[in-house]
Amino acid sequence: MLSQNKIKLIASLQQKKFRQELGLFVAEGHKLVTDLIGSRLRLEGIYATTEWITANRAPGGNDTCSLTEVTPREMARISGLSTPGQVLAVVHTPQSIADPAAVSELATSELILALDEIRDPGNLGTIIRIADWFGIGTILLSESSVDTYNPKVVQATMGSIARVRVTEGDLAVLLSGISAPVYGMLLGGESLYDHHLTQHGVILVGNESRGISEDLLPYVTDKLEIPAWGDTYAGKAESLNASVATAIVCAEFRRQCSRRSPPIEPQKPQIL
Amino acid sequence: MLSQNKIKLIASLQQKKFRQELGLFVAEGHKLVTDLIGSRLRLEGIYATTEWITANRAPGGNDTCSLTEVTPREMARISGLSTPGQVLAVVHTPQSIADPAAVSELATSELILALDEIRDPGNLGTIIRIADWFGIGTILLSESSVDTYNPKVVQATMGSIARVRVTEGDLAVLLSGISAPVYGMLLGGESLYDHHLTQHGVILVGNESRGISEDLLPYVTDKLEIPAWGDTYAGKAESLNASVATAIVCAEFRRQCSRRSPPIEPQKPQIL
Repeated sequence: MLSQNKIKLIASLQQKKFRQELGLFVAEGHKLVTDLIGSRLRLEGIYATTEWITANRAPGGNDTCSLTEVTPREMARISGLSTPGQVLAVVHTPQSIADPAAVSELATSELILALDEIRDPGNLGTIIRIADWFGIGTILLSESSVDTYNPKVVQATMGSIARVRVTEGDLAVLLSGISAPVYGMLLGGESLYDHHLTQHGVILVGNESRGISEDLLPYVTDKLEIPAWGDTYAGKAESLNASVATAIVCAEFRRQCSRRSPPIEPQKPQIL
Repeated sequence: MLSQNKIKLIASLQQKKFRQELGLFVAEGHKLVTDLIGSRLRLEGIYATTEWITANRAPGGNDTCSLTEVTPREMARISGLSTPGQVLAVVHTPQSIADPAAVSELATSELILALDEIRDPGNLGTIIRIADWFGIGTILLSESSVDTYNPKVVQATMGSIARVRVTEGDLAVLLSGISAPVYGMLLGGESLYDHHLTQHGVILVGNESRGISEDLLPYVTDKLEIPAWGDTYAGKAESLNASVATAIVCAEFRRQCSRRSPPIEPQKPQIL
């Protein structure tokens, strides 16, 4: 049973203003909620129908956060989906300000994605899912991008938001301190397939229509292009969708690396 | 100046029923409309604001289809967009029934995409754009998929609908007659990167949540998988978005082929 105030509070999280004010966001559906349970994110509460609770709660289970049974009618009021599911989680927004020194150090040991003004929620969610698939644990997001905790972004991640850290920051400041390679996707860059791609550094993805901002170009050390096979054939697509381009690039980074040497197991200190 | 009947007719094309009844669809925005002009698709008419006409019509130009000047108010009534643009085209839907014999022959000389129950308009539009980028000129679409001429699909193609032929058909019938390889993306398939990929045949893409239908599995000759780097690292994404997976696969087909020999201009038998 939900109070009117609670219903209003959860419903208000569809809006950025209230998400920021309350430091909370919503995630809906079985896959997303089960991915969030036990993840690094802290849940404020789970709101589920009797049916979901019966099917999913461990017998005599020790709930790690509050679980509230709701009627389908209440679910429809707190849900942002046109077809509400059986479960919804309210989640504490993680701290998400990127620290330049930490980012610079991280870039020397692993791949990071930096997104410059990604505006479409579906694109951002899909990119978070792609990062997860390719084992990229950190995304830097320019402040002018869509809000990571926009419900459309959260839903499009299909649970990957539970695993990939998205931190906001001024990309010019963050990139200026990096000594590792900064790969930029740019028309006229070298073919992705002719370039030696490292297992560390930053992959910079530009805005859906304008590409990489002028002020970030000086930080790009390696300009890359996805060759358009269509050039030699009939096709004439001028560009690829931002998330599609990101996927092709991430796949090629991982392919090249897997071809060079097997992933290295962290060194284990020898006892004997 | 538009008549009330014309406004009603164009507005009705947002619905599949009327698109099918009238054999027409709408495309909006400068990029899409200019890509359609002079393409293989036949335009019924272009509806544009004074501003667009002044900027875009060749002086003394010979319009290849009727051009109607509309007020911003009229544009708002015929447009399906929340922010209408300056130009809208009404286009004749091309004949789109795939002929099994023609498909079978085409598959021996070039790559074809076959989409099994793609339901999301954004995914279908994005896949059409990907096909265009990678020079794949033909897409076979199962009858249970989203309508190709749904305005959301058309807009997501970013003009590629003017170049890529999308033909509907019963995929089981079409695939059963094919002697060329039929590549299917399946969990447990061989790594895409370890498999010799040909420059001809069919790439079969499954439904967003259920994958490839049971009844199509017998026609798959080569089972492929995109390796999830996350398996060995921290990531745990269970899947990739259908259009993202399609992009990674198409990119790898073209990469492998470009590494073997320069692209050969394929023969193009006509399906229709």
